[in-house]
Amino acid sequence: MDIAQLNSLSYEDFVDVLGNVVERCPLVAAAVWSGRPFASVSELEGRIHQFLDSLPESGKDGVLRCHPDLAGRELRSGTLTAESQAEQRQAGMAALAADELSRLARLNAQYKRRFGFPFVVCARLHDAAAVMRLLAARLGAERAAERERALGEVKRICGLRLIKSHLLPVCP
Amino acid sequence: MDIAQLNSLSYEDFVDVLGNVVERCPLVAAAVWSGRPFASVSELEGRIHQFLDSLPESGKDGVLRCHPDLAGRELRSGTLTAESQAEQRQAGMAALAADELSRLARLNAQYKRRFGFPFVVCARLHDAAAVMRLLAARLGAERAAERERALGEVKRICGLRLIKSHLLPVCP
Repeated sequence: MDIAQLNSLSYEDFVDVLGNVVERCPLVAAAVWSGRPFASVSELEGRIHQFLDSLPESGKDGVLRCHPDLAGRELRSGTLTAESQAEQRQAGMAALAADELSRLARLNAQYKRRFGFPFVVCARLHDAAAVMRLLAARLGAERAAERERALGEVKRICGLRLIKSHLLPVCP
Repeated sequence: MDIAQLNSLSYEDFVDVLGNVVERCPLVAAAVWSGRPFASVSELEGRIHQFLDSLPESGKDGVLRCHPDLAGRELRSGTLTAESQAEQRQAGMAALAADELSRLARLNAQYKRRFGFPFVVCARLHDAAAVMRLLAARLGAERAAERERALGEVKRICGLRLIKSHLLPVCP
């Protein structure tokens, strides 16, 4: 689908195609539809970033809380969104040894207690060991800075989902 | 569930319970969780209203676009959210005669072309004839005023969903 086709979509079809580029937040795609016509998919991506940045702090926290735990119950029970399922599998989250799994669960529980949202990371850009290192390192971060860092990961995930759905080309 | 129990929920459980009080926008419940502890469910409801009001215009449009058409395809195919399905049935949307159905579809299409979001009304407070009259009357409204009016309906729907889930008591 190219940008002309995207621009021609009704908001219903637009949300069907792009509703999960930000995990479980179809509101985001539904909101940016207002900005049509987009000159390019990169411009559309920029509008998504702008919209996320325009949310009040509680709204940014809300976006983060719509993300699942890494290697959590939902991965094991297969109830993640299709996108999250594929990304977490690719990052090796479904193949962790029992001790790694319990270490990750412990770190994530600590992280959630501290920040009030789950650890969000663009899993496809990291392997399990790197995810674990990052998570451990972030536990000492300051809340506002961590929210912005996590929102940066949401944007990275969104970019890869746009590429995956053949909307955004892979950079040369 | 009383307010003390609600206040004690993790954000995951909070979103499980309240994720659809605003149609297909779990982000809203996830965002207001930041405001705990709430003194009452009415205070929680007020926070939801505040959050909706704090969204940029495109975000308000986004919330409206997450609502289904009245008596649309999804009602017939049974793919509405459980809440919308029950509300539309109760308002008689599943029992419209063919000519009423096509009149409603025509009016709603006109409305969507004009405003860029669907006609949102607290269906449970109206019967089908009243819905049709309201919709016809709104077609001439001004866009910004109509957005706010529609957001008022979102809040009314939210209130009834809170009552339905036994969170908000029915007023005497």
